[in-house]
Amino acid sequence: MTLALQPIGVINTPFKEKKNMPIQPAAGAGEKGTVAIFEEYRAGLRDLAGFSHIILLYHFHKSKKFNLQVVPFLDTEPRGLFATRAPNRPNPIGLSVVQLDKIENGVLHIRNVDMLDNTPLLDIKPYVPEFDTHTEIRTGWLEKARKNVASRKSDDRFR
Amino acid sequence: MTLALQPIGVINTPFKEKKNMPIQPAAGAGEKGTVAIFEEYRAGLRDLAGFSHIILLYHFHKSKKFNLQVVPFLDTEPRGLFATRAPNRPNPIGLSVVQLDKIENGVLHIRNVDMLDNTPLLDIKPYVPEFDTHTEIRTGWLEKARKNVASRKSDDRFR
Repeated sequence: MTLALQPIGVINTPFKEKKNMPIQPAAGAGEKGTVAIFEEYRAGLRDLAGFSHIILLYHFHKSKKFNLQVVPFLDTEPRGLFATRAPNRPNPIGLSVVQLDKIENGVLHIRNVDMLDNTPLLDIKPYVPEFDTHTEIRTGWLEKARKNVASRKSDDRFR
Repeated sequence: MTLALQPIGVINTPFKEKKNMPIQPAAGAGEKGTVAIFEEYRAGLRDLAGFSHIILLYHFHKSKKFNLQVVPFLDTEPRGLFATRAPNRPNPIGLSVVQLDKIENGVLHIRNVDMLDNTPLLDIKPYVPEFDTHTEIRTGWLEKARKNVASRKSDDRFR
């Protein structure tokens, strides 16, 4: 059973190559980008401007063959792929919560971008704390490393 | 350009039909489910048990034709599709943050489920507050309604 997806738009960012990118939206704080929604989907943007933050699902379009064990950017030893946010995955879907500044003529102006330029957009969902956030959490191997995410950049390990 | 996805596992929940389901994980508080990961992907589960919460991306497999304007469960008037979490979308990918209780023999035992039984799983990502949560947010039309999500169930409007 295969699920076939088609992009609904394109994400543009300052990041032209995989090296030296912010590795998460937190690390891309302030970095601006745009999302151009294809004409035929623009009617679905109604009411979206009321949300300060949105969830973008996108295609890791430069993703290659995946490996079930990877050394993540924030660590020095191999971890199970599904315990990481590495881009090379069986289904290469990326997820970022970004800040939405405004929408003009079908173009979303966003902030805190951490994706490559020309990334194909698959879906937009409103970010809602009651749905999407949790307290009293544990974060395994990331427990220490996640505090340093804002100061880390990618290298070329996921070519 | 088409992205072809294949399930990496199956989500099992108590919900056999679309009616009377929790409409978000917050509404499915306590509802238990399991995720059986296919044999060939199980090596990727290493280190995942350290995380108390995980993000599941899955195929809204009962999703039909989408409409760019929908009346969401939490509202009485039409909203732009991308300002809602409705299941009928151009790319029918669902996203839920669930609690992970334990992993045994490639089966994840999860809590706070809000998806249909036999939902095809596409990806698992660790939930990390520094990556995924934001403060000082606005939530547009959902500003009032989101507080009531825990007491609302689905009906059959998204047949």
